[in-house]
Amino acid sequence: MELPEELPQLYKRHIFACATQRPPMHPRGSCGASGAQPLWEKLGKKIEEGGLSADVGFTLAGCMGFCSAGPLMVIYPEGVWYRPQKEEDIDTIFESHLKNDQLAEDLVVVLSR
Amino acid sequence: MELPEELPQLYKRHIFACATQRPPMHPRGSCGASGAQPLWEKLGKKIEEGGLSADVGFTLAGCMGFCSAGPLMVIYPEGVWYRPQKEEDIDTIFESHLKNDQLAEDLVVVLSR
Repeated sequence: MELPEELPQLYKRHIFACATQRPPMHPRGSCGASGAQPLWEKLGKKIEEGGLSADVGFTLAGCMGFCSAGPLMVIYPEGVWYRPQKEEDIDTIFESHLKNDQLAEDLVVVLSR
Repeated sequence: MELPEELPQLYKRHIFACATQRPPMHPRGSCGASGAQPLWEKLGKKIEEGGLSADVGFTLAGCMGFCSAGPLMVIYPEGVWYRPQKEEDIDTIFESHLKNDQLAEDLVVVLSR
């Protein structure tokens, strides 16, 4: 069976946020060492308290590569990668992308291999 | 800026596979306790050896809920959830979905909340 254009979806959006924590001086760096943890905690709380839990899945993930570009999160199905660096950035992504379907342009990170 | 219909994508597909491991008798169960680990190892290896690494991202993830339905993996942007239970199922998902863009129907799991 070919892949249908539109399959019934469990979530409108599914966010994966890197929770990899390497020691501070590790040469690869890590999202954890770049301050990811309090950001993801805030995002999870906002999704819940903002009433978006039914629409938005939020999953902590292992290393997605690009460690020096962290903290990294990706939102599917859009495939948009964000690099929030402070709590206000989480507010922006939440309000703009999750609540209003608008790209939070300034926080988008374009990754290439 | 509104979300564009098509953004440049880092991967053609991105797979997230639950790597949560709870003790065998834990009441919630876990993908790990359901035998996930060797399956994900095989899938990662097949993606690499099958020459799909440039197209397919593969990330281990934390708990995605639905623990009793594991081992669970989801493929975006399609949003298709699979529940492989043996190594042959990984071969099927790889050949069908990843290589030939065909749904591996028998292994799809429909989750609802």
